[in-house]
Amino acid sequence: MRPDALDWSVENCTIGRAMTILGEKWTVVVLREVFNGVRRFDDMRDRTGIPRQVLTNRLAMLVERGVLRRQPYREPGARLRYEYRLTEMGIDLYPVLVAVREWGDRYLADPEGPPLQTVHRDCGALVDTHLRCRAGHEVGSPRDVVPSPGPGARRRDR
Amino acid sequence: MRPDALDWSVENCTIGRAMTILGEKWTVVVLREVFNGVRRFDDMRDRTGIPRQVLTNRLAMLVERGVLRRQPYREPGARLRYEYRLTEMGIDLYPVLVAVREWGDRYLADPEGPPLQTVHRDCGALVDTHLRCRAGHEVGSPRDVVPSPGPGARRRDR
Repeated sequence: MRPDALDWSVENCTIGRAMTILGEKWTVVVLREVFNGVRRFDDMRDRTGIPRQVLTNRLAMLVERGVLRRQPYREPGARLRYEYRLTEMGIDLYPVLVAVREWGDRYLADPEGPPLQTVHRDCGALVDTHLRCRAGHEVGSPRDVVPSPGPGARRRDR
Repeated sequence: MRPDALDWSVENCTIGRAMTILGEKWTVVVLREVFNGVRRFDDMRDRTGIPRQVLTNRLAMLVERGVLRRQPYREPGARLRYEYRLTEMGIDLYPVLVAVREWGDRYLADPEGPPLQTVHRDCGALVDTHLRCRAGHEVGSPRDVVPSPGPGARRRDR
């Protein structure tokens, strides 16, 4: 009855590490804004209502962790300002956002349905996430997937 | 230059709603534990080091939001206790965890590699997430996906 997982350390777990970035309140909402083309502090504030200081902190953290980069711009007659762009590391978060949205759409949408869809640029069909193994099999259910120690697995001292 | 997104309300955004659950510190780590078969409070505490009161709060929130359910058990000679199981709503978070792990594995793993892999039960090959549109096209890059107003889209009052 004792779970196998208890023999393995979570000290270098990449989910835990990823959540030090994604698990801060509002981080994923900030990323949603940037993925939707909202790149400027005041526009993000206006649309999301995130408190000013929290938004400042989140943007600084995302730049520091390499997920966003600051890009200078200047409107006519105004001082130099910065907008926020996704780095490659940031763009690679896209499947996380799609997976979160799908789950939210399934369980948390209003009766009329979700406010946003993601569609394939080429054909206009809706885009979803799928699990597939490297032998090419579609994986329909989490019950068909098992955890296995990776190259960095460490036994726990007990 | 003004982003289209600014014309649309985020009030009923399902990413925002999902993050009221997943964006609380430690929530996803708790879910990782349950997905890995670690279902009991003391085992979670032992493996993760999450502060007792935080773990109590997160488990209560996840039960209240319908992601986990409490299942009674009794060890010989001990009092009745509870363990935590995933509901269907919880199991449906699996693609989110896999997507978070993949991103963490790519950018945040130690040099020797990630500690955990997910493999297909039937064939043993590694399992990854993929984006695909409903017309059956593989979507290789987020740049091939565009946001589009869904049935619940609301224009903003400005």
